[in-house]
Amino acid sequence: MIEERYKEGLSFGLGLVRKLFEGQSAFQKVEVFESTHHGRVLLNDGCFMLSERDERIYHEMMVHVPLNVHPYPRRVLIIGGGDGGTAREVLRHESVERCVMVEIDAMVVDACRKFIPQTAGQLGDARMDLRIEDGVRFMKTSDERFDVILIDSTDPNGAATPLFGRDFYKDVAAHLAPEGIVIAQGESVFYEQETQVSLLTLASELFPCTGMFNFTNMTYPGGLWSFLWASRGPHPLRDLRPHRLETFYYNEDVHRAAFQLPEFQRQSLKPWTTI
Amino acid sequence: MIEERYKEGLSFGLGLVRKLFEGQSAFQKVEVFESTHHGRVLLNDGCFMLSERDERIYHEMMVHVPLNVHPYPRRVLIIGGGDGGTAREVLRHESVERCVMVEIDAMVVDACRKFIPQTAGQLGDARMDLRIEDGVRFMKTSDERFDVILIDSTDPNGAATPLFGRDFYKDVAAHLAPEGIVIAQGESVFYEQETQVSLLTLASELFPCTGMFNFTNMTYPGGLWSFLWASRGPHPLRDLRPHRLETFYYNEDVHRAAFQLPEFQRQSLKPWTTI
Repeated sequence: MIEERYKEGLSFGLGLVRKLFEGQSAFQKVEVFESTHHGRVLLNDGCFMLSERDERIYHEMMVHVPLNVHPYPRRVLIIGGGDGGTAREVLRHESVERCVMVEIDAMVVDACRKFIPQTAGQLGDARMDLRIEDGVRFMKTSDERFDVILIDSTDPNGAATPLFGRDFYKDVAAHLAPEGIVIAQGESVFYEQETQVSLLTLASELFPCTGMFNFTNMTYPGGLWSFLWASRGPHPLRDLRPHRLETFYYNEDVHRAAFQLPEFQRQSLKPWTTI
Repeated sequence: MIEERYKEGLSFGLGLVRKLFEGQSAFQKVEVFESTHHGRVLLNDGCFMLSERDERIYHEMMVHVPLNVHPYPRRVLIIGGGDGGTAREVLRHESVERCVMVEIDAMVVDACRKFIPQTAGQLGDARMDLRIEDGVRFMKTSDERFDVILIDSTDPNGAATPLFGRDFYKDVAAHLAPEGIVIAQGESVFYEQETQVSLLTLASELFPCTGMFNFTNMTYPGGLWSFLWASRGPHPLRDLRPHRLETFYYNEDVHRAAFQLPEFQRQSLKPWTTI
């Protein structure tokens, strides 16, 4: 078994065929396994990041929700996203001229390029500008502005902790073009209500249009997971344009439905939601 | 750990405090545990049936979706549902005059009455007619008709297998009043596509309005689960009435959103969906 011990007593496992890669970078333990029924899987510090069988769910929802709402997304910034799946979906949008991806950990990118080309296979695209660099530092030094910023981070432990903080979001706001949209990995709906409240609170101080939207995949413990939505104006429901790409999970109805939160989550996030 | 080995290499576990009950009935192994973070949990044949922490999700979605659509639900039939959670939610609707519940396994009812009053606490209600009997047999012998029939079964193995078959659904149709609605536990979206297709196919032969709707809880493996919707006429979106009860997960927007299926599921079920 490949097993993750999540919080609050929860464990989750997939059948193991063999380990393909294990390394310890400056930031985390990186592992790639071949699983019995879910293709290849990536774990950072013992937490499932993706399986080949269901990674399209997370990546489609992170990317197509904002890119089908922004009126003309040309410049996209990804913070994190080392497996390349988010970049792959971004590059499917013809309007995109430039995609900057800032990943702190070269080991994740290298391992996925070698063992998980399904996600990392487009990282050599001519429109990509891949930088192995701390996303927090990139924000301090770059003067570029982006139409869409995607914060594709791991959980708020270790290297990813600052990516859930107020200082970082101030820098994100400074790099966002007019009509810009920010999406961030928003953690478990059931187990991370505090993180969701904290993320949405600080986003609502910086952006006029804020909320969260949900998705479910097979391999994230607790079933229901979220993304943060924050924008300078575009509204995720009123400004949705027709979707034209082939997808596994996403469609226009799923897009709209994702913003309809379970009652307990709706109540808990209401004060900071404008959608 | 309390651990379930699901199909296709998947395992799922909750932290264990202690075992409260274990018994082998004529139909299945029945176990109740105290978990570390999810309250008391019921397992039948090693599969999680419910945890106190999240059972409201399943029971609210099974009950309030049809009872908020039927114009005036007075008579409700539950097949299975031994833990009592479905009956509890049915009884919250003031229009309900009579709720017949037909559970094959007395051991499940007795164990839940003793150890999980959160779900079984309303089974003594004056409107309840609780019968320990095979649901398939009940259908053959009863001549009563119902406004709403809820098939709250375990997975299609062992005693529950006939509840996924054509003969049973013919009997269900015969017991359904005009404007009647049938809801059935519809299994895992990711891992049980064949079961979903088979259930929806046979329902579409018997009822004019058919489809599936989804929910996500913490304790069913693979995250995304379904219910079958089948009715003699009422449409789950067009005929939705205002919801007035306090709920944990369900609200009117969640109701509508639940019918917006992920693209792969929508494509796979399209030929038999009229919603």
